[in-house]
Amino acid sequence: MSSKQRIVVIGAGFGGLSFIKKIDKRNFDITVVDRNNYHSFPPLFYQIASCGLEPMSISFPMRRELRSKKMRGVSFCYGEVSCIDTLNRTITTEYQTLHYDILVIAAGTTNNFFDIENLRQRVCTLKSTSQAIRTRNEILLKLERAAIEHDPDLRRRLLTFAVIGGGPTGVEIAGALGEMKRYVIAREYPSISPDEVRVILAEGSGRLLHTMSEASSEDALRDLRKLMVDVRLNKTMRSYDENDLITFTDGDTIEAGTLIWTAGITAETFNFKGSAPSQTSGGRLSVDEYNKVAGTEGIYAIGDIACHSAPAWPKGCPQLAQVAIQQGKRLAENLNSPDRRRPFVYNDKGSMATIGRNRAVVDLRHVHFSGWFAWITWMYIHLISLLGMRNKAVVLLNWIWSYFTFSSSLRLIMRPSSNPSSSNKIRS
Amino acid sequence: MSSKQRIVVIGAGFGGLSFIKKIDKRNFDITVVDRNNYHSFPPLFYQIASCGLEPMSISFPMRRELRSKKMRGVSFCYGEVSCIDTLNRTITTEYQTLHYDILVIAAGTTNNFFDIENLRQRVCTLKSTSQAIRTRNEILLKLERAAIEHDPDLRRRLLTFAVIGGGPTGVEIAGALGEMKRYVIAREYPSISPDEVRVILAEGSGRLLHTMSEASSEDALRDLRKLMVDVRLNKTMRSYDENDLITFTDGDTIEAGTLIWTAGITAETFNFKGSAPSQTSGGRLSVDEYNKVAGTEGIYAIGDIACHSAPAWPKGCPQLAQVAIQQGKRLAENLNSPDRRRPFVYNDKGSMATIGRNRAVVDLRHVHFSGWFAWITWMYIHLISLLGMRNKAVVLLNWIWSYFTFSSSLRLIMRPSSNPSSSNKIRS
Repeated sequence: MSSKQRIVVIGAGFGGLSFIKKIDKRNFDITVVDRNNYHSFPPLFYQIASCGLEPMSISFPMRRELRSKKMRGVSFCYGEVSCIDTLNRTITTEYQTLHYDILVIAAGTTNNFFDIENLRQRVCTLKSTSQAIRTRNEILLKLERAAIEHDPDLRRRLLTFAVIGGGPTGVEIAGALGEMKRYVIAREYPSISPDEVRVILAEGSGRLLHTMSEASSEDALRDLRKLMVDVRLNKTMRSYDENDLITFTDGDTIEAGTLIWTAGITAETFNFKGSAPSQTSGGRLSVDEYNKVAGTEGIYAIGDIACHSAPAWPKGCPQLAQVAIQQGKRLAENLNSPDRRRPFVYNDKGSMATIGRNRAVVDLRHVHFSGWFAWITWMYIHLISLLGMRNKAVVLLNWIWSYFTFSSSLRLIMRPSSNPSSSNKIRS
Repeated sequence: MSSKQRIVVIGAGFGGLSFIKKIDKRNFDITVVDRNNYHSFPPLFYQIASCGLEPMSISFPMRRELRSKKMRGVSFCYGEVSCIDTLNRTITTEYQTLHYDILVIAAGTTNNFFDIENLRQRVCTLKSTSQAIRTRNEILLKLERAAIEHDPDLRRRLLTFAVIGGGPTGVEIAGALGEMKRYVIAREYPSISPDEVRVILAEGSGRLLHTMSEASSEDALRDLRKLMVDVRLNKTMRSYDENDLITFTDGDTIEAGTLIWTAGITAETFNFKGSAPSQTSGGRLSVDEYNKVAGTEGIYAIGDIACHSAPAWPKGCPQLAQVAIQQGKRLAENLNSPDRRRPFVYNDKGSMATIGRNRAVVDLRHVHFSGWFAWITWMYIHLISLLGMRNKAVVLLNWIWSYFTFSSSLRLIMRPSSNPSSSNKIRS
């Protein structure tokens, strides 16, 4: 080992990656730890679930990425961090314990089920590649099951897909399901009439995409309704029982065989030994304007898991890729030259969401636009953000393909064989 | 339902597919049943395991395929056939019971573990897409685990990959692992020296690829040794214990953390009610020259699961895609025009295997060749045999990509999330 200070980064997402790109490898020893051996691309998880893309085409192996010029010398450790010992300055995964001088927590968020009973076990989610694959399998299995089901009630239940949460992910998966109903089911499931398939999107607040402009909310609502998505606003879910019955706080109910949950996120949690950091709502770690975690030494947090309340953002910056990327970059710059360090200020470049083919909404600082050009913009931005030329090429190929064929050939129910899972085996 | 005779086909592999392509849909009602909702491509499973291809790019959704002109009117049922009732002429899956007038069994084969203790649970296999994905995960996990392991014995065990069985699959996966060692590990696992990685291929007989020509066997042996694969002939495995110790019948032992089993196949089995068909070695169903299953009425078998002993093939035709495709076609022709039916005769068009980049062996009826041209031939034949233009394009893209970069970006440890598996959920 060298005498350099050792920085351990937890999480190879947008934040972690932008940090290790920028940090000066001559002054620091960098180790990045992730529970996956690849960098994944959350904005497109919904396209895995809706059979638009191969999971692998939006994932990129970390070790491959670390070969790139900017990353040389960074080492990778595969494993899930369970414990952070702030006294001895170590982190522990299922495989090893690592020492750090400086710790950068960029672990992001996970689903928040608000303690609704059995929800974790019963619903489909989209917070990781694995979850998205499972959601895809669920959707396809429901269709196969319905295709041979004669009992009208059971058919109706199997063919009802409820999406809870009207944020970008909820809107995008609902739109994709709307398209599937329109273009795919009609052609490939002769025993299912598209009218039997119901896609319902329930949002707790008064409008969709409430982090975006009013105009975007309206456009998204209009576009989803065009796709025959049954959008219900001001609906907060109370329960989802064994009989697939969704009950809302206002008493309304829906029988839905598939429930896709995009209604809440909470920070990833760790078992802290020593001084535990102070947390804000949603379990986020409160950080100062230099992303230093309050109440700790040598620990920084960036991205969705960090919460820095600035005048402009009293509740902390929005949990977006843009924020994570900018925080990672700024933190690296500050560590590279501590004497010239600058506080973090979020530069909002705008946000966007897509609602099926030819439809998207884009909010830039002073302008909102939607429709075909917004859709092209959305595709372009996401394509260039993907790691790896091969992935860019495969994703582009898939998009062009499905644009002209109105379908993809990725409607596959696929899992690793059910032999004892690798992870168990290797831990033994 | 129409008054046409109803044909149920079990299995949408090479045999089943070639049958339903050719059978006359005006005279018969066709239903194909498969445990997967896609047609998969076994010859390339080893490339899934060795991270060369996405699983999805060599799989094609049955419902999409059934939209093609030749297939119009064929219906698909997702499910695994457990029981065949020859008295009432029904088959039963986990979801339904179907009546047939004519049954075509094209269910293929599965791994044969020869009752070696715990083998089923302990080894990696390559007989299905799911198994190949699991094998890929295992290989990558071993590398990640070794990258942070300091105990030399455990390192050695984690970095020893044993392939049992020197047929095409065994040769191809061993070659792919040899390349991984040479081109990938050296660059991406700084803490692992390529010399630490051992790839061992053990074959029970005196030569590799014993279904092919002597020349092919010798070329394959030479090429594998060039790739530093430790090939051991006349080695039959006796056991594989909890300490990863492989013991051969001659007393030799190897400690291997990963064992890839390609040494035996046996026919898929069904629970027969009524007259059970007579079976041959490996559980294959004995059929006559018209592929009618001996001792049954209206039941035919084609492909790997069928065994027709002709003078040329006393032990039955080899279990190859070519045989399945030709039998499917001939059976369909015979059912289309019973008055002009012809016995099945296998037309051996030759066989091939590949051993890493630029290396392959090809046996045609009267000519053997190997090397670069054989490799190009191998790629061409496999590419055109894939279903779906998109898949052809993605696979070609991947191959060109890895040819020039000496690596792929598919080294991803990926599984669906561990929530209760879809299949259980849907069966409940």
